[in-house]
Amino acid sequence: MITQRMRDFFETRRPEGPCLVVDLDVVRANYLGFEKALPQARIFYAVKANPAPEVLRLLASLGSCFDTASVAEIEMALEAGATPNRISYGNTIKKERDIARAHALGVSLYAVDCVEEVEKIARAAPGARVFCRVLTDGEGAEWPLSRKFGCVPEMAVDVLRHARTLGLESYGVSFHVGSQQTDLNAWDRALSDAANVFKTLANEGILLKMVNMGGGFPTRYLNDVPTAQAYGMAIFDALSRHFGNRIPETIIEPGRGMVGNAGVIRTEVVLISRKADNDNVRWVYLDIGKFNGLAETMDEAIRYPIVTPHDGDAVGPCVLAGPTCDSADVMYEKTPYPLPVALNVGDELFILGTGAYTATYASVAFNGFEPLRSYII
Amino acid sequence: MITQRMRDFFETRRPEGPCLVVDLDVVRANYLGFEKALPQARIFYAVKANPAPEVLRLLASLGSCFDTASVAEIEMALEAGATPNRISYGNTIKKERDIARAHALGVSLYAVDCVEEVEKIARAAPGARVFCRVLTDGEGAEWPLSRKFGCVPEMAVDVLRHARTLGLESYGVSFHVGSQQTDLNAWDRALSDAANVFKTLANEGILLKMVNMGGGFPTRYLNDVPTAQAYGMAIFDALSRHFGNRIPETIIEPGRGMVGNAGVIRTEVVLISRKADNDNVRWVYLDIGKFNGLAETMDEAIRYPIVTPHDGDAVGPCVLAGPTCDSADVMYEKTPYPLPVALNVGDELFILGTGAYTATYASVAFNGFEPLRSYII
Repeated sequence: MITQRMRDFFETRRPEGPCLVVDLDVVRANYLGFEKALPQARIFYAVKANPAPEVLRLLASLGSCFDTASVAEIEMALEAGATPNRISYGNTIKKERDIARAHALGVSLYAVDCVEEVEKIARAAPGARVFCRVLTDGEGAEWPLSRKFGCVPEMAVDVLRHARTLGLESYGVSFHVGSQQTDLNAWDRALSDAANVFKTLANEGILLKMVNMGGGFPTRYLNDVPTAQAYGMAIFDALSRHFGNRIPETIIEPGRGMVGNAGVIRTEVVLISRKADNDNVRWVYLDIGKFNGLAETMDEAIRYPIVTPHDGDAVGPCVLAGPTCDSADVMYEKTPYPLPVALNVGDELFILGTGAYTATYASVAFNGFEPLRSYII
Repeated sequence: MITQRMRDFFETRRPEGPCLVVDLDVVRANYLGFEKALPQARIFYAVKANPAPEVLRLLASLGSCFDTASVAEIEMALEAGATPNRISYGNTIKKERDIARAHALGVSLYAVDCVEEVEKIARAAPGARVFCRVLTDGEGAEWPLSRKFGCVPEMAVDVLRHARTLGLESYGVSFHVGSQQTDLNAWDRALSDAANVFKTLANEGILLKMVNMGGGFPTRYLNDVPTAQAYGMAIFDALSRHFGNRIPETIIEPGRGMVGNAGVIRTEVVLISRKADNDNVRWVYLDIGKFNGLAETMDEAIRYPIVTPHDGDAVGPCVLAGPTCDSADVMYEKTPYPLPVALNVGDELFILGTGAYTATYASVAFNGFEPLRSYII
């Protein structure tokens, strides 16, 4: 969506070059929506989705906790006003010296997915709480996850048992159902695995306390997605089914769901051409592409809605590409994007749902183009 | 290759975190190698491959010209000591106001691939020389190009005819055979197309002067590649065959071929794990990945040679992944990478052939990780 505040900003400020505008009112509404939909869960905002200080400060003031991927993100969350007990070091891949830094900063909650990582934490952050990430299949996600994070549930039992042996607090289990997950049953399958880990360890006297349900809450691109309420109900049902009357503490880690629809990218049409006279597909080149903000169009995974000055007019198929000399800097080619035939060089386009995973993905200076500028309003 | 100067740098400076080291002696040798192999061609270094000021200054001092993708790159080339007549604005996608800036800076050579771009140049850089990029099929390239740049040869004739009509100098034809092109016949096919454009326009009294043969000169990764000399001979043969005794002025635009083998990335093993007890593939997580330097491992297109402290020992299959919480940040998964079984967390690895398309591709701060640091020695 383009909010009235965004429209006013673009009209009055008229920033030069491509830019992202994030409306904090939408972020606030999203936070309150999650709180309402999942009142029993603690919200850990996934800082990597958009670490703009204004976003972090707003969420910190609303009471959000923070899921961080690095020491730099921990420092940003602290800077924004979060106390260390509201910060999780959620990356399963950590240098031991970074764990030590996080420990020194007061962070006491860490993600792991193998015995090796548990050993680092035992050395660098003695006594910390750890949760083990379990592999899920990611079925139904628009951006399915690879097997990069997590281990099979049987191994999670070993990992958490080992943590206890080394003096850590075996705190819980996490999973991530895949980004843009629209299948509500995905949480059910993962919660079933989590409950099994809880039961196995309970039989040994290790009582886990928390289930971290990760992110995956979608933002609205071209298709309608279930509402936060629908997610909340489906998840609460699944929790009751698998944990009975011993429902654990729960955590969610929305990133895209918190800021995705709060951002709009303004871009300019740089060139429109055809490759041959008889080509029925136009090539539309923008001043933004895969390397300065739209990295998530990789494999055409995410199809952003685009607003043009000619909406409503007749459309024709377009290949959309970025401004660099890199032939991989093409956004939509396999499935061309319908855009108005009246589109002109110099037209301003608005790319919606771009508040997450855009600005920080941008390259430092590829082809000499500066990274995407952000304006938080 | 890791040169002695690189080894000395790593040992004495011991920089913290992942970094790229580029040895200028190798860049110099590459430049002289191109000069010797293709004495008749002017060398336009593709600045985007590595725009480090030290690299640009060295090449400027050796007499190189520069192929630039943006006004920022034009300014960098000028800053490094190149005169405007040694600079080509080689991006076919340019805002009209950027063409005007380039014109104001004295640049007079522009790439085009459609009538629309010719019209912008006629308005913003009257009298400039233009060359039209022709589509090639890129067969034989490790990183085949999409159809993003260029038009079919028949359309190139129209484009250059139109340029003349608008008072521009129709200067020549360009093509790009694809990056890491190892099939020497690729140049032959493209030169045949170029010669046809020359002939058609000559019949109308438009005498083109230049063929820009682009880049595509490979750097050595895991497989041996033909030498610059072999390229030079094959290209000279093809030129003679297609242009007879009217061989045009020629330009080459090496980027990867100039700096690729001059760079080595030093990285650290952050974690080694398995996803299940019976997994025979190890996951090896480095402190560098797709989003802070190794973007060209996308689709596992480029397989860099990796030097470990245990080379020569028994090896086993590994999935190689980066340090971010992004599940797409995996370098080699479809075809696992064999690494020593003795590999340990904390080991330093050297990733060879990384002088091109690494540092500037790095994201500004994804997951809070800083962009790849470069040291030019």
